[in-house]
Amino acid sequence: MIYQKVALIGLGLIASSIAWATKRGNLAGQVRGYDLSPEARETARAIGLCDVFDSAAEAAEGADLVILCVPVGAMETAIRAVAPGLKPGAVVSDVGSVKRAVIDAVTPHIPEGVQFIPAHPLAGTEHSGPAAGFAALFDNRWCLVVPSPDSDPQKVADLCAFWEGMGAHVDEMDADHHDLVLAVTSHTPHLIAYTMVGVADDLRRVTDSEVIKYSAAGFRDFTRIAASDPTMWRDVFLSNKDATLEILGRFTEELFALQRAIRTGDGDLLHDYFTRTRAIRRGIIDAGQDTSAPDFGRTPLARK
Amino acid sequence: MIYQKVALIGLGLIASSIAWATKRGNLAGQVRGYDLSPEARETARAIGLCDVFDSAAEAAEGADLVILCVPVGAMETAIRAVAPGLKPGAVVSDVGSVKRAVIDAVTPHIPEGVQFIPAHPLAGTEHSGPAAGFAALFDNRWCLVVPSPDSDPQKVADLCAFWEGMGAHVDEMDADHHDLVLAVTSHTPHLIAYTMVGVADDLRRVTDSEVIKYSAAGFRDFTRIAASDPTMWRDVFLSNKDATLEILGRFTEELFALQRAIRTGDGDLLHDYFTRTRAIRRGIIDAGQDTSAPDFGRTPLARK
Repeated sequence: MIYQKVALIGLGLIASSIAWATKRGNLAGQVRGYDLSPEARETARAIGLCDVFDSAAEAAEGADLVILCVPVGAMETAIRAVAPGLKPGAVVSDVGSVKRAVIDAVTPHIPEGVQFIPAHPLAGTEHSGPAAGFAALFDNRWCLVVPSPDSDPQKVADLCAFWEGMGAHVDEMDADHHDLVLAVTSHTPHLIAYTMVGVADDLRRVTDSEVIKYSAAGFRDFTRIAASDPTMWRDVFLSNKDATLEILGRFTEELFALQRAIRTGDGDLLHDYFTRTRAIRRGIIDAGQDTSAPDFGRTPLARK
Repeated sequence: MIYQKVALIGLGLIASSIAWATKRGNLAGQVRGYDLSPEARETARAIGLCDVFDSAAEAAEGADLVILCVPVGAMETAIRAVAPGLKPGAVVSDVGSVKRAVIDAVTPHIPEGVQFIPAHPLAGTEHSGPAAGFAALFDNRWCLVVPSPDSDPQKVADLCAFWEGMGAHVDEMDADHHDLVLAVTSHTPHLIAYTMVGVADDLRRVTDSEVIKYSAAGFRDFTRIAASDPTMWRDVFLSNKDATLEILGRFTEELFALQRAIRTGDGDLLHDYFTRTRAIRRGIIDAGQDTSAPDFGRTPLARK
């Protein structure tokens, strides 16, 4: 057991997975939780997720670790709600997909004697809410921990052990580098997927039912990430604006080069480009971050 | 049994899956095959895929159905090679991802008494070659058949029954509409995925190893389709130029609108957009074209 009491502020997909993974690993004596939505609290109670309280302050009271599991734009409200009752020596952490903006929003409200050690587990599904979580979500996934120079090494080590206990691998990273890496591996891909799905939905000459029926030809894989939580993603783009816009700029520059190659019939350029991108895929499979099974090892859908 | 002899010209992923699915469904008396590459012929013989011949003409000799399973840019060479020996009453088909360009390339070489009925199965994986095929590839996937007004209705019905016997659903479609629908559901998504993977590979400030380690945050799903066969995709873009460029134009227009919303901080526009795109995802799952299981129902990778 690493902590006596862990408090989860916000009970969505990530928090509910933390609750189940904490129990699976026997990592805490008690998991306490709160969500702004009465329906979410109701659901969490009904499925026995954790001890649910009717205010953030009550949930956080006496906790050794308080994890803010709310959209990035709601972090300041969340820390303000819990700050007055935090016990001395407590650690506050978070699971936000952006780190610089969260640090700026949360740090001013951290009381004396409490440490803020941000973190970001790189895991998720297209589903949201307290019923969406499951204990295995973080297994073999990365969690990036972003300590500051003032962080107590023992408290950082405890937080890392907590994430490892939930099945994750842990790396430490600087906040600005985190935001750039995530702009490449997550934020820009999500924006592009949202855009492609929006284009398909908008066309008048190709019907939605055609897009849906014939989606297995490639489009389908975009729709999964374009089904993620809209509030979470709005906040990500607004709070990681600079890095996202920089990577988007690079993306459109490259896209225009390929578009020009198509227009001018430059097959060699296209072939070289498409050959190069295969190597990264092999690296991801070798690193255990994906399966090489056909169709991602999707369970067969109808007939065998 | 629908055909006595089926000949597969080109023995890649699609052809080898046709061979296995034909055997599974007992759809033909004999499956004959040829590939330009001696290594591919060797592999096909070694795994007992089909009766392999050392020339396309021999493979096609006496076949009731000859399927051209080569990249779109090689269709004309393939039909020229088999045309002289085609038996009267034979049907030639193909599996190309583009239909107008294939019809233009193949039709002039179809002998008197032979019919060309193009088709396109919407199925694939990131793997290529004769060893990549498997009998279930077409199960519950769509195959688009593109007859002409001159096509013999009985021969069209036989070809449709053949694809249904391999597990596919069949729709008939006009060539130009096919090329537009595929530009939306397949060709443009592939180009975008290739571009995003290329950008990630190019950045100096984010290392390849970071991109690979942290790919589960969204990027990973792009790399699968960006690992598809480079020759096949070069030919697709060069031969479906107009539709792809049109959809790309729409895509960049939308992307710039979202980029502007990020720059100006227009959270409402982003939230509305991201909410709308969720509906299409639900449609795809309801239509049985994907699984709603977390992570696509990926088999757990390392720990459970």
